Amino acid sequence: MAKTFTINEPLDMHLHLRDNDMLRLVAPLTSKTFSGALVMPNLVPPVTTKEALLSYKNRILSACNGDNFIPFMTLFFQNNYSYEFLEDIKNEIIGIKLYPAGITTNSETGVSSMDIEVLRPTLEIMSRLGIPLCIHGETNGFVMDREKEFMPIYESLAIAFPDLKIIMEHITTKDAVELLDKYQNLFATVTLHHLLITLDDLAGGMLKPHLFCKPIAKTPIDRTALLNAALKAHPKLMFGSDSAPHPKHKKECCGCAAGVFTSPIALQVLVELFEKHNSLDNLNDFVSNNAKKIYNLNLKSKTINLVKEDFIVPNVYEYKEEKVVPMYSGETLSWSLEDN
Amino acid sequence: MAKTFTINEPLDMHLHLRDNDMLRLVAPLTSKTFSGALVMPNLVPPVTTKEALLSYKNRILSACNGDNFIPFMTLFFQNNYSYEFLEDIKNEIIGIKLYPAGITTNSETGVSSMDIEVLRPTLEIMSRLGIPLCIHGETNGFVMDREKEFMPIYESLAIAFPDLKIIMEHITTKDAVELLDKYQNLFATVTLHHLLITLDDLAGGMLKPHLFCKPIAKTPIDRTALLNAALKAHPKLMFGSDSAPHPKHKKECCGCAAGVFTSPIALQVLVELFEKHNSLDNLNDFVSNNAKKIYNLNLKSKTINLVKEDFIVPNVYEYKEEKVVPMYSGETLSWSLEDN
Repeated sequence: MAKTFTINEPLDMHLHLRDNDMLRLVAPLTSKTFSGALVMPNLVPPVTTKEALLSYKNRILSACNGDNFIPFMTLFFQNNYSYEFLEDIKNEIIGIKLYPAGITTNSETGVSSMDIEVLRPTLEIMSRLGIPLCIHGETNGFVMDREKEFMPIYESLAIAFPDLKIIMEHITTKDAVELLDKYQNLFATVTLHHLLITLDDLAGGMLKPHLFCKPIAKTPIDRTALLNAALKAHPKLMFGSDSAPHPKHKKECCGCAAGVFTSPIALQVLVELFEKHNSLDNLNDFVSNNAKKIYNLNLKSKTINLVKEDFIVPNVYEYKEEKVVPMYSGETLSWSLEDN
Repeated sequence: MAKTFTINEPLDMHLHLRDNDMLRLVAPLTSKTFSGALVMPNLVPPVTTKEALLSYKNRILSACNGDNFIPFMTLFFQNNYSYEFLEDIKNEIIGIKLYPAGITTNSETGVSSMDIEVLRPTLEIMSRLGIPLCIHGETNGFVMDREKEFMPIYESLAIAFPDLKIIMEHITTKDAVELLDKYQNLFATVTLHHLLITLDDLAGGMLKPHLFCKPIAKTPIDRTALLNAALKAHPKLMFGSDSAPHPKHKKECCGCAAGVFTSPIALQVLVELFEKHNSLDNLNDFVSNNAKKIYNLNLKSKTINLVKEDFIVPNVYEYKEEKVVPMYSGETLSWSLEDN
């Protein structure tokens, strides 16, 4: 009989679900297998009001086919949120996502300065109300140095707001891994693809636009540091796929959009990866328990069984006019979802 | 009256002309404006015999519309060339091009080892016959480190064969620039695009496949070192475009080929670049005189006049079924060829 593995309440703590037909295409590919996901607010326009947030949450839920799944909603950070507004919306959100302006897809209205004094009013309110801060931590410097250059900003924030939970989103460098152990209030998510690829996979052979993402995949040394932290289920590190669907035609063109689409293959590949490194005992912590503790989550029971049987990844997932190409498109994985 | 600038006998000391319809498309775009070009031998199969070399040279000449233009031919390096063969072909070639196997387009049959003892027999013959060695200097390491990792190999070769002229082709790093001053027998070419772009231009914003090349564009520090050496017309540095046409559909796809097509815009952009940096007095050395001295070339007189008038770069150059997208496709340059 084929080997099996069980994940309880898998959580994806960094997810892009988009909207409209794309939402209807990708949401069920997460809600089927995950208990919950932290949903990014970088729609056009971004999610900055209670009305927009609740409306988006309803659209997500209606796209999820009644699955046992919780979309953990986030607000798009702005400098001018009032105490009253954040107190009122607090129970509807899991955190607030901060983007430096223009740093990635749909981040044009992000903050134009990371000056702590500019950010302080909102961050103090968040700290008092216990709302975590999720950050896309990149400067606008040279693409390979952007995350490393952001480290002093993470440090300043961690020192200035000791009661604020700060999540370094989709970390890609050894530097960020090391920072986790330096400040009690710094946490991080890491994607599946940053555990697997380096810049070599994007541009070392032929150019592979489907592996183009922000932050860009870094060096072998960085990947090793990320992988080691994930495999031992570092208690301050959570799985967050940053699965970011873009229409096929926007990935395979002259000005290709950044993002890797991993939702439908994330759990299978994680099991394969943790098995390969004899670390399956830590996978439930990495993909569920760490996030539950960091965010104090209560979830309904959900058990996902995987079986060691070949799974041929579809070339494309589609709904109406939307087509998205997943990572490992057309390749064969060694683990499948039990009921697939 | 618009400002003008004259280049005498411009030379492109690293050029890919391909074959068949692609050759007929791209050869005139170089022969019109350049006095000569060092032509790469990485056809399929590579140019390794006198017959193939002379036949290719004839195909090139017949594609050049009778222009005053010399294709300087190169052989594809092999370990087993005999003294008799190289002595016989010596006057037909300007150098021999060495590729590590698999390092770039059509290099599958390159050398599988850079072990000097393996290469020694052919290199000793080349040294005795005075045939220069042109090298694609990259290891198969991490993409950003491949050229830097190759520096010790250049050093070993320069020391082991002091009478062999060794040309580091299309250098992309500060390390390679610095090596020029360390060994009397080391020379280099540099492309137009590596004077202009870094990895940021390829992958810092949207992904730009038309700027994807091997060696990959490096860091701002590297680009500055290359540009400074070119602007002062370092006497051991030559212009070599590495203009590498690929069919449009092979650049705008999921596994995009490496190469930037610059032939039709190279001189215009070089004048613009050297003017911007107040270095126009050095441009004739960089784009002609240095190469004449290094390779001892005698050329028929050819004068190219450029005029400071807008030139809108075509979106695509085409011939029959072949379509190639040039660098700066659709953009406006500030200098034009006088008779354009």
